[in-house]
Amino acid sequence: MSTVKLVEEAVANPRVRAVFDDIKATKKIERVPNIWRALATHPEHLELCWTRLKAIMRPGKIDMLTKEIIALAVSVTNGCEYCINSHTAAVQKLGLDNDGLGEVLAVVGLYNQMNRLADAYQIDPDILPKVV
Amino acid sequence: MSTVKLVEEAVANPRVRAVFDDIKATKKIERVPNIWRALATHPEHLELCWTRLKAIMRPGKIDMLTKEIIALAVSVTNGCEYCINSHTAAVQKLGLDNDGLGEVLAVVGLYNQMNRLADAYQIDPDILPKVV
Amino acid sequence: MSTVKLVEEAVANPRVRAVFDDIKATKKIERVPNIWRALATHPEHLELCWTRLKAIMRPGKIDMLTKEIIALAVSVTNGCEYCINSHTAAVQKLGLDNDGLGEVLAVVGLYNQMNRLADAYQIDPDILPKVV
Amino acid sequence: MSTVKLVEEAVANPRVRAVFDDIKATKKIERVPNIWRALATHPEHLELCWTRLKAIMRPGKIDMLTKEIIALAVSVTNGCEYCINSHTAAVQKLGLDNDGLGEVLAVVGLYNQMNRLADAYQIDPDILPKVV
Amino acid sequence: MSTVKLVEEAVANPRVRAVFDDIKATKKIERVPNIWRALATHPEHLELCWTRLKAIMRPGKIDMLTKEIIALAVSVTNGCEYCINSHTAAVQKLGLDNDGLGEVLAVVGLYNQMNRLADAYQIDPDILPKVV
Amino acid sequence: MSTVKLVEEAVANPRVRAVFDDIKATKKIERVPNIWRALATHPEHLELCWTRLKAIMRPGKIDMLTKEIIALAVSVTNGCEYCINSHTAAVQKLGLDNDGLGEVLAVVGLYNQMNRLADAYQIDPDILPKVV
Repeated sequence: MSTVKLVEEAVANPRVRAVFDDIKATKKIERVPNIWRALATHPEHLELCWTRLKAIMRPGKIDMLTKEIIALAVSVTNGCEYCINSHTAAVQKLGLDNDGLGEVLAVVGLYNQMNRLADAYQIDPDILPKVV
Repeated sequence: MSTVKLVEEAVANPRVRAVFDDIKATKKIERVPNIWRALATHPEHLELCWTRLKAIMRPGKIDMLTKEIIALAVSVTNGCEYCINSHTAAVQKLGLDNDGLGEVLAVVGLYNQMNRLADAYQIDPDILPKVV
Repeated sequence: MSTVKLVEEAVANPRVRAVFDDIKATKKIERVPNIWRALATHPEHLELCWTRLKAIMRPGKIDMLTKEIIALAVSVTNGCEYCINSHTAAVQKLGLDNDGLGEVLAVVGLYNQMNRLADAYQIDPDILPKVV
Repeated sequence: MSTVKLVEEAVANPRVRAVFDDIKATKKIERVPNIWRALATHPEHLELCWTRLKAIMRPGKIDMLTKEIIALAVSVTNGCEYCINSHTAAVQKLGLDNDGLGEVLAVVGLYNQMNRLADAYQIDPDILPKVV
Repeated sequence: MSTVKLVEEAVANPRVRAVFDDIKATKKIERVPNIWRALATHPEHLELCWTRLKAIMRPGKIDMLTKEIIALAVSVTNGCEYCINSHTAAVQKLGLDNDGLGEVLAVVGLYNQMNRLADAYQIDPDILPKVV
Repeated sequence: MSTVKLVEEAVANPRVRAVFDDIKATKKIERVPNIWRALATHPEHLELCWTRLKAIMRPGKIDMLTKEIIALAVSVTNGCEYCINSHTAAVQKLGLDNDGLGEVLAVVGLYNQMNRLADAYQIDPDILPKVV
C-alpha cells in the first residue's frame, strides 16, 4: 500500500490537474497511473518529473519500443515491481510478443550474470571505447 | 588487477583453445577479451558461459544493436566498469553515435530515478500486463 | 510471509526478553517490531544487531530526523519494502510532512539518476575530498 | 577514463556554454565538473539534468547539508565512485568534520545490513505509515 | 502475479515437456516450480537456463549445501523475493536449522554493511590476492 | 584514494590501538588492513564494527571457509572492489584453489541471472519455506 494518500484527479489543484491532463493526453490513457498520483503530493516535484520524462520518452535516434525495452531492462535489474509491471505492459502494447519478451529478458539475465563475473575476477577493460 | 592469472592463448589447453577460437571467429576479433581469459581458469564454466552467450547474442526478434543497448543498460544499472566499457565500445561499433548514446543513457538515468520513486512511495501496480 | 516463525514475546527466553524489553523502552513502543522477532530465532545475533543499532541511532553530531532520513534514503535505494515502510513511519513520527518527504525523495531519485550517468560515462573524480 | 570526449568550456556551443556558466555561478566554482562536461555531448540532456538538479538542490524544508548527506547515502549504497568523491567533498565544504562523516556512514552501513536482514527473513511490515 | 501465463505441464510441447521431466527427475519433486513454467514461454531460453543450472548445481569441489547457501546470499543481496523463498526452503531441506540459517544471514548482513563502508571511504586494496 | 586520512598504527590513541592490536592478534597478520585504519577516524564506530565482525566471523554451525565464501558472494553481488580483493585473498588462504573459486563464482553468476529472471516475470513463490 502506498505510503502517501494518492491524489484523486477530481480534487487535484489546478497545477496538478494540468500535469494530470497532459499525462492522459500524451499517453492516450483514461486515468492517471498511480505513480503520478503519489508524486502529486509534491506538485513541484510532479512537474519536474513529468516534464523531464516527456522530453526523454519520445522517438529520437532511438525508437519508442527500444526506449521501453531499456526501461524494462533497468527496472528488472533494480527489481522494481511497479516498474516491471508498467514497462512489461508498455512493450506488449507496442507489439512485443512473448517470444520477443523472452529474448529481451534472456539478454537482461545474461548480462546480470556476466557483470558479476567481470566484477568477481576484477577484470581490467580490454580496449577503451573510441572517445569521440 | 584481475584476481586470477589470465590464461594466455598460446598456452591454453585444447578445450579452452576451441572456445577461444570460436570467440575470435564469432566476434571477428584478433584477440580474446580479458573476461574470457579469466573464465578459462575453469574450462567447463568457460564453455557454459560462451555457449549460452553465443545462443542469446545473435539477431532474432530483437536486433543486435538493441541487444547491446540492453546489455549497456544492465551494466550501467549494476555499475560494472568492465562491462560498461565493453558494451559502450560494442554499440559504437554497431553505429550508435554520441547523440544516440546520450539518448540511451538519458532513458537509463530516467528510469533509475523513477524506479526509486515508485519503490519510495510503495506504489501498487495500476494495471497488470495482459497475461497471454 | 516470514521464512521463520516470529518469536512471541510471551514465550521468549530470558536473553531474548531482555532485548525485547530494551527495544520497547528505548523506542517507547508497545510491541516488538517483526524484524526483531525474526532475529530472535538466533539470540546472539539479535543482541549484536540491537546493541549496535542502539549505539548508532541516538542523537550525536547528526540529529535523529537526519539519521532516519539517511535510513530511508538507503532503504529506498535498496528497494527494501519492510524498511521503506518502517523509516517512512519514523520520519513522519519525527515531524516530517508530505512536503518534506517529497523533498527528501526528490533528492533520492535525483542522485539515483546522477549515479548511473556518472557510471555510464565512466567519469573520473574532479577534485578529491580534502583528506584530513 | 570517460567513454566520451569531455566538452571543453572554451569550445562549447552557446547552448552548452549557457548551462556551464549557470553551473559555475550557482555552485560558485571556477571550473565545470567532469560529469557536466560529459553530459554536454548531448546538450538537451545536459539542460534537462541541470535544470532539474538546480530546482531540487536548494534549501527548502530540508537544508543543503541534509540534502548532500542524502546524496552521499544514495551514492554509497549504489557504490558510485565519482559521486562518493563529489558528495564527500560537498559535505566537508558545508562543515561536516570526520566525526560527523563517521556518524553518517555508520547509519548508512547499519541500514544496508538491516535492509538485507529484513529481506532475508521476508518480514511483513508492522504498522503502515500514516497515509495523509 | 506473473507477467506471462505460466505453461501448464499437461499442455507443454514436447521440447518443453522434456525439460520439465528432467527438472522433476533431477530435483526429485512432483511439480515444476513456477520459474520454469514462466521460462517455458520461450522454449530455447528454458533449455539454455536449465542445462546451465544443472551443470553448475551438482556437487563438485563445493558441496550442495554450500552452493545453496551461496544462492541464498546472492538472492538476499539482490532482494529477490521468489529466490529468497526458494533457496531458504532448499537449505532447510538440506538440513540447515534456524541456528545455522541465523549464522548464514548474520554473515550476509555483516558484509552488506562492510561493503558499503569500504566503498564509502574509497579504500584501496591492501594486498592483492595471490594470482595463480 | 581514500576520502579520509588513514590512521597510522604508530600514532593511534589507546582506544584505537586496543582494537588494532586485537585485529592483528585475531587475524594473525602483521599490519592493520586499510578499512580498519579508515574506520579508526571514528573510534566508537571502529569498536562497534570490529566487535560485531569478531563475534560473527568465527567457526560455529558454519565453518570459516563457508563464511568467507558467503562474504565473497555478497561482495561480488554488490560489486565492491576492496571487498572482492580481500575475500578472494581470504578464501585462497583457507585453501580454495582456482577450480574451487571458479565453482563458487559460477554459482554467484548463475543466481544473479536467475534472480533477475524471477523478478522479470514477477513469479510468485511456489512453496513457502517450512516455518519452524
